[in-house]
Amino acid sequence: MPMRANDTSILCVGSVALDSVETPFGKAERVLGGSAVYFTAAATLFHPVQVVGVVGSDYPLADLDFLTQRGADLSGIERGDGESFFWAGRYHFDLNSRDTLETRLGVFADFQPKIPASFRKARFVFLGNIDPVLQHEVLDQVESPEVVACDTMNYWIDGSRDALVDLLARVRILIINDEEVRQLAGEPNLLKAARWVQAHGPELVVVKKGEHGAMLFAKDWLFFVPGFPLESVFDPTGAGDAFAGGFVGYLARAGSLVPEYLRRAMVYGSVMGSYAVEEFSVGRFIDLPKADIERRVAQFREITAFETHVGTFAGR
Amino acid sequence: MPMRANDTSILCVGSVALDSVETPFGKAERVLGGSAVYFTAAATLFHPVQVVGVVGSDYPLADLDFLTQRGADLSGIERGDGESFFWAGRYHFDLNSRDTLETRLGVFADFQPKIPASFRKARFVFLGNIDPVLQHEVLDQVESPEVVACDTMNYWIDGSRDALVDLLARVRILIINDEEVRQLAGEPNLLKAARWVQAHGPELVVVKKGEHGAMLFAKDWLFFVPGFPLESVFDPTGAGDAFAGGFVGYLARAGSLVPEYLRRAMVYGSVMGSYAVEEFSVGRFIDLPKADIERRVAQFREITAFETHVGTFAGR
Repeated sequence: MPMRANDTSILCVGSVALDSVETPFGKAERVLGGSAVYFTAAATLFHPVQVVGVVGSDYPLADLDFLTQRGADLSGIERGDGESFFWAGRYHFDLNSRDTLETRLGVFADFQPKIPASFRKARFVFLGNIDPVLQHEVLDQVESPEVVACDTMNYWIDGSRDALVDLLARVRILIINDEEVRQLAGEPNLLKAARWVQAHGPELVVVKKGEHGAMLFAKDWLFFVPGFPLESVFDPTGAGDAFAGGFVGYLARAGSLVPEYLRRAMVYGSVMGSYAVEEFSVGRFIDLPKADIERRVAQFREITAFETHVGTFAGR
Repeated sequence: MPMRANDTSILCVGSVALDSVETPFGKAERVLGGSAVYFTAAATLFHPVQVVGVVGSDYPLADLDFLTQRGADLSGIERGDGESFFWAGRYHFDLNSRDTLETRLGVFADFQPKIPASFRKARFVFLGNIDPVLQHEVLDQVESPEVVACDTMNYWIDGSRDALVDLLARVRILIINDEEVRQLAGEPNLLKAARWVQAHGPELVVVKKGEHGAMLFAKDWLFFVPGFPLESVFDPTGAGDAFAGGFVGYLARAGSLVPEYLRRAMVYGSVMGSYAVEEFSVGRFIDLPKADIERRVAQFREITAFETHVGTFAGR
């Protein structure tokens, strides 16, 4: 039986887009994309999600039915007059870099998030990568969330810096990539950059490093999870949002931010990021057996675990 | 009591150099450097090492006494007429990239490794990053080593490719960085690149990723260790060779390549790499208490360990 969205759901606000992607392995035209879509595709594997966003008259909303079937409430997605947010990009041979071929904001240009009354009691809020001014407006409409997690990008760090730094005081978990956190803090050392962020509000900083994995900086401890080594990375688009979906989704399910759950949430995040890149768009999330997910978690453990009690200096 | 070099020692052949290094934090002039020096500084913390190399008349060999005191046999370092191998470089602000300001090969240009009779029974051999033709000549002079580990670099992959690929058939462990293994295999995917290497000889491939850590590819399993998160990375020079020293040194001490030792060797490698970057040259290795090393190993475990039995889908 699918989970139902309710007061304990995660509220997710972000982009709902169409992407055209070229990789060395193929091409996908106008497929489901956007931070809210990737986040929700991953997070609903763990916990119900209420989504707020905007699409144009061209958006194939029916293609999101698989999300509704496993606990997403999409009633907060408005349909505007005009075109949906569209992004086209081409990845290079090593998949670590890409060119943006085209960005058309469409109805997203005038997006004003309106949080439906039934979404305002959310305990967990995920602010996808949108203008920090809008992220503030979302929080103004939510009653008293326990956990606000937030993503951002270089565009806002440059262009909306003051609003973003103000926002940090309202955020408990900042989820950001390594280049961006260095830019935000003006500090090349990751540890120091994370401390800078913590001094401005967030108790937890998750730094995503693409294929190199991700790090969680807590007050007095940290945790590292590698990227899952895959033989075929097909399309890196959305991996960071899927990571956030696994991370926040698992935490909402676990219901607490104790260290053992946070560590495990990082692993689920990396697992979800690894699924995101295996197919174009959110293809890999549509029929993803939970047993597969647990198997991949066990593989992460095999890849990182070592004994501390064999062959130490003391032991010989 | 220091360990003594003997038949069970590691044989290390590589460069013994002088480096002048500039970083955003300071400058060091003509300090101890070279692959054999960094390797031996780390490896002798675990096991005796016999070193073969060449220096010029200008080399302060007495500064290597700390290595002799803990089990290095430096009698295989010839002193040639002329100048020692000299490298000068400047690191950029983020320490992830550097410019070479000057390279003078000096006596290293005509280096012909001559393995002393007492070194030829070595069970473990480390071939530092030198011309693959010379690496072959080293192996021709060694009786029947059990474990040959080898490093290389882009310069040889381009310029001595045939000799290098031939060499792989004589190597059990290739230690190489991520860009280089991609270049060697002509394959951007790391897993596939490692498989390519294994098909050409080495049963084990260690891929170093700088601050992002390192991966070990075995036949049917793999292991990942992160880079140790440091607040102050002072000078990245030699981190890869120190990694190799910790990795091979621990394996020689453990005496076997079973998976649990290989995993632990990767952690010791990353620990040694982290010490290499904390000071200029091999400064950090001179007085390094073993308790400090074990403490850092324990920190690696804290950074990477997670429970698999809490909060699984099945458990809730």
